Amino acid sequence: MKVHDIALVGAGRMGGLHARNLALSPRFRLVGIADHNEKLAAELADELHTPVRSYGEILGDPLIEAVVVASSTSSHLENVLLGLASGKAVFCEKPLSLDADTLASALPDIELAPRPGSLAFNRRLDPHFQALKRQLDDGGIGTLETIHIVNHDPAAPRLDFIPKSGGLFKDFTIHDFDTASWLVGDQFVELFATGSCLIDPKIAELGDIDTAKLVLRSGGDVLCVISNSRRTGYGYDQRVELFGSKGALRADNIPTTSVSRLGEEGSTGAAFPYSFAERYADGYRAELDHFADVLDGAALPATGPRDSLRALRLADAAERSLKSGGPVKLQQEQADA
Amino acid sequence: MKVHDIALVGAGRMGGLHARNLALSPRFRLVGIADHNEKLAAELADELHTPVRSYGEILGDPLIEAVVVASSTSSHLENVLLGLASGKAVFCEKPLSLDADTLASALPDIELAPRPGSLAFNRRLDPHFQALKRQLDDGGIGTLETIHIVNHDPAAPRLDFIPKSGGLFKDFTIHDFDTASWLVGDQFVELFATGSCLIDPKIAELGDIDTAKLVLRSGGDVLCVISNSRRTGYGYDQRVELFGSKGALRADNIPTTSVSRLGEEGSTGAAFPYSFAERYADGYRAELDHFADVLDGAALPATGPRDSLRALRLADAAERSLKSGGPVKLQQEQADA
Amino acid sequence: MKVHDIALVGAGRMGGLHARNLALSPRFRLVGIADHNEKLAAELADELHTPVRSYGEILGDPLIEAVVVASSTSSHLENVLLGLASGKAVFCEKPLSLDADTLASALPDIELAPRPGSLAFNRRLDPHFQALKRQLDDGGIGTLETIHIVNHDPAAPRLDFIPKSGGLFKDFTIHDFDTASWLVGDQFVELFATGSCLIDPKIAELGDIDTAKLVLRSGGDVLCVISNSRRTGYGYDQRVELFGSKGALRADNIPTTSVSRLGEEGSTGAAFPYSFAERYADGYRAELDHFADVLDGAALPATGPRDSLRALRLADAAERSLKSGGPVKLQQEQADA
Amino acid sequence: MKVHDIALVGAGRMGGLHARNLALSPRFRLVGIADHNEKLAAELADELHTPVRSYGEILGDPLIEAVVVASSTSSHLENVLLGLASGKAVFCEKPLSLDADTLASALPDIELAPRPGSLAFNRRLDPHFQALKRQLDDGGIGTLETIHIVNHDPAAPRLDFIPKSGGLFKDFTIHDFDTASWLVGDQFVELFATGSCLIDPKIAELGDIDTAKLVLRSGGDVLCVISNSRRTGYGYDQRVELFGSKGALRADNIPTTSVSRLGEEGSTGAAFPYSFAERYADGYRAELDHFADVLDGAALPATGPRDSLRALRLADAAERSLKSGGPVKLQQEQADA
Repeated sequence: MKVHDIALVGAGRMGGLHARNLALSPRFRLVGIADHNEKLAAELADELHTPVRSYGEILGDPLIEAVVVASSTSSHLENVLLGLASGKAVFCEKPLSLDADTLASALPDIELAPRPGSLAFNRRLDPHFQALKRQLDDGGIGTLETIHIVNHDPAAPRLDFIPKSGGLFKDFTIHDFDTASWLVGDQFVELFATGSCLIDPKIAELGDIDTAKLVLRSGGDVLCVISNSRRTGYGYDQRVELFGSKGALRADNIPTTSVSRLGEEGSTGAAFPYSFAERYADGYRAELDHFADVLDGAALPATGPRDSLRALRLADAAERSLKSGGPVKLQQEQADA
Repeated sequence: MKVHDIALVGAGRMGGLHARNLALSPRFRLVGIADHNEKLAAELADELHTPVRSYGEILGDPLIEAVVVASSTSSHLENVLLGLASGKAVFCEKPLSLDADTLASALPDIELAPRPGSLAFNRRLDPHFQALKRQLDDGGIGTLETIHIVNHDPAAPRLDFIPKSGGLFKDFTIHDFDTASWLVGDQFVELFATGSCLIDPKIAELGDIDTAKLVLRSGGDVLCVISNSRRTGYGYDQRVELFGSKGALRADNIPTTSVSRLGEEGSTGAAFPYSFAERYADGYRAELDHFADVLDGAALPATGPRDSLRALRLADAAERSLKSGGPVKLQQEQADA
Repeated sequence: MKVHDIALVGAGRMGGLHARNLALSPRFRLVGIADHNEKLAAELADELHTPVRSYGEILGDPLIEAVVVASSTSSHLENVLLGLASGKAVFCEKPLSLDADTLASALPDIELAPRPGSLAFNRRLDPHFQALKRQLDDGGIGTLETIHIVNHDPAAPRLDFIPKSGGLFKDFTIHDFDTASWLVGDQFVELFATGSCLIDPKIAELGDIDTAKLVLRSGGDVLCVISNSRRTGYGYDQRVELFGSKGALRADNIPTTSVSRLGEEGSTGAAFPYSFAERYADGYRAELDHFADVLDGAALPATGPRDSLRALRLADAAERSLKSGGPVKLQQEQADA
Repeated sequence: MKVHDIALVGAGRMGGLHARNLALSPRFRLVGIADHNEKLAAELADELHTPVRSYGEILGDPLIEAVVVASSTSSHLENVLLGLASGKAVFCEKPLSLDADTLASALPDIELAPRPGSLAFNRRLDPHFQALKRQLDDGGIGTLETIHIVNHDPAAPRLDFIPKSGGLFKDFTIHDFDTASWLVGDQFVELFATGSCLIDPKIAELGDIDTAKLVLRSGGDVLCVISNSRRTGYGYDQRVELFGSKGALRADNIPTTSVSRLGEEGSTGAAFPYSFAERYADGYRAELDHFADVLDGAALPATGPRDSLRALRLADAAERSLKSGGPVKLQQEQADA
């Protein structure tokens, strides 16, 4: 087993999550952490017995094979391009950029770089969604006809996050756009999005919505419904249901324990995981494992910048649909593909 | 307990279902069955030890208190009006008519008749949906924000039924329009409908669709998604999910038995009921029981012609949305209310 | 369809349950109700529009084809024998007697009577246990190796019932002895019973227990565990699990509705039925339907007095085991068979 | 966070499992692997980049703080005592010994050793059983009255393992004895065990059984049923159910994924984990984490040699019960406590 020297840029919440997974993986050696916020970088580096280094130093060190970009979303693309240009393999969680055209124009630099850029969506490698996809591909429900996705967050984010989030569709629904695209195995050609602000009127004041329903149609007439909410009150509701010509498949929520209680009030099962970090813990580990496979030459990246761009185009279309009040046709998305 | 003398017009599948329930109810005495198809009427009358009589005779018999109208949809309204005009109380399953304006103009005759007209929707009195509604009204999930309805038929109807069905929205989705209206307790003000023909291209040739997704918005910004399919391959998929400010409620499918099997392939639970007659058997019985309560003066009709009209207006709007490709505003529906 | 004239002796709780089922069945006409307690008889007769008659009158009426014996347990056998001797077909719920030898000596009178005596166990005809048995017989789990039965009552009976109940094993476990015998399709040859009084010390003062665990072994070495409790606090816990060479089958509890709630505390499903009358409502109806089949000559009685005797012998053995503290061999039971 | 230098003796299946967990834990540094079988030791050492060393070398190295004993069961106790005598902290999975009296006489050497001996039972630290225990202790079901344990292995072990296994009770049921003792929080005072050989007659020829049912009674009259089977055909069936005065708690099996399929045959959920290594993966990791807490002085060992002895005494009693055919009283077990 080859051990890959890897460094991290971005020591915030996501950076910490990836860094701890790297520290526990026998396939990586975490050799440096960079962040403009020196305190954040120092704390994480201290916890993981790793040096703080500037991103410049990291990029200039020929012994470092790869970098994980977990800086703020607005710097994702720049840091990914810098990494690739320095000859590093790069791992970056979605979204690569909040602007589709910017990303489209950067595609060649990413795709022609000497080392791979792995643009990850945590759900693609979730073992439950993987099992769903496998059973779909195995023909377990015949021909796919309909996709239902429920993606509801446990609690609304802090209000100061809303303006820099990119809006509900780019920040949150983007996962569902990628999941749906992956499952449908086809291009979406039409999209209708509607939404409300039901949780907190301050979100509306900031120009965003907190609840949305979207209907997508693929070229092959598969229909997909996406439901989003910023707050459930009961955990991170993450479900996908597929209806086909011979049956249906469902990936359901996963209770935190197998314990249930029978009492006067009925039968009470354990709550769901509360956060994405808990629910997709396996997916985050699997992403890095997959990245190690890519570095070993044992796999091609499961997702690349075009997946990121496709999801972003769908988010743009959703915004146009919401604004216009009617469905929109998706031509640009097909042009990129 | 008063026993009500009641007669039936229409001895087809639905007529048979209601007649057998009447025969088993201690609150009714079934005293006559009418149908233009004399063979059908004779067979059912024979089975239930009841005389065949013409609808005219039934209406003229002062000893008969009430009639159940279960004739073909196209004659529902006429038979209901005849019954009411003859001083009978009338029970009729949805839809009262396939034409909203015709129904609207008949409203005064129904509402001002001396005896009640009970226009039933089988799901309103289903004990599971009743429990769902009760828990919603009890505040169990706070303020209602979103409704998801899955209404998928086990198998597509015979092709010769399609042209006279009124189309998917009036024949099938109409149940969901009523269920959603009942649950939301508010008027829907906007509707987007899209659909595909995925099951049988002959359905498209007949001008209909077999798969649909609809998004409705209420005046209070509650969003409702309806999913329809004419064929599951696994039974009658009937689910309602409600998301609120403090949690979610779900009325799920009901396996036919509590038996499950553990084997190499996993854990296999029993299939769902295959037909509406099985799934809503309790609802159909409860409808007649409720009608007996109405006749006893112990209850007002839970649903009336305006509920039927409202669902019909929503079906019309869905057809307009499907044709135009965009959402439609619902003004007429509010005007009727 | 032939309609059978039938009368009832015993107008208590069980008598009322059977009488209401008879009144709703199109296959029976309830033509008389007898009870020493005239008030009870009059109330039930009034509710069901049927005359009060003495048991003597009923037995002497040649137009009455059958009787349902639902009098107190201590008079079951006498009333059954009187009915059969008068040429009536007789339906009686378990137990026929609380004394095995008395029942053994009455076997010829029952088995040689001109008309059938149908000795019912409500669980045999429960649709869920029927499905379990069918899947077992179909080989779904290979060879049966182990049976687990949970039979827990929602709440302890009134203390004045305990002395006349026959004790936990004859009153309550007797159902499980019959269920286990039916499922195993073999004779049990050894039994170990142990118990505690955990719910109410007054039950111990009356010489009974309220909690029991039993282990039975069949001639073919199938092992069966029975768990009994007089009080759950959460409903009528009724489960059977079968383990075989190729898998396991389970008949689980049945929630009263399909509604569940997601909230902070987890996922809460509906409670179970609280009483045997609710849980086995279908079984009680099916028993009478089966009895009508027997009267029509379309079926042989599914259970007879030997089933009752076998269960009673097992209950006697359980009492001996409890008293002695050790397992007991079952020879007498085999001798009766 | 202090990192503890630790070595392993025993490079078989369990040794490999613990070694890989040590390699992934940030709290340990695995500094040596010993095994009489040099090939086994070399392979594991190679995989984990750690040197092969003899157990003698390990014990003599003052820089090594702790050892994990994962050698064959028959050498557990000797290796544990050697480790403790050398001043090492020792971690050992159950069973410490197959002979209760030998273990009893070694108790002082273990308990008075300068460094802690942590005798682990993987289920104690399983998060699901931990949640069960926590809810029990929190009073969620009132007073505990009954425990039901199902512990069924997916497939019988190789026949050559049977003679050295110690027999079903010491090899397999011993987990349930510990789980039951932990949950009941009381001494068991009586035990009845019965069993069959249903899976493979060769197991009987080797003097063992493959299927067992046990009933235990605690001093406080709590009743416990244990069900064991060496083969399910459907995975590793691991369930615990607790019945109390106010409700019931259940730790159920955990499907390998959340995916289910609806089809004609019903609803099929994913299979259970097949092996103890998969099912208790979290428990094995948590054991070592707990051991690190013990080494850090942050926790006392959750289980010690007396827990091992208690379970062993119960296994001895089960063998006596099986042989005698009757229940046995448990006095020795109390004397040890």
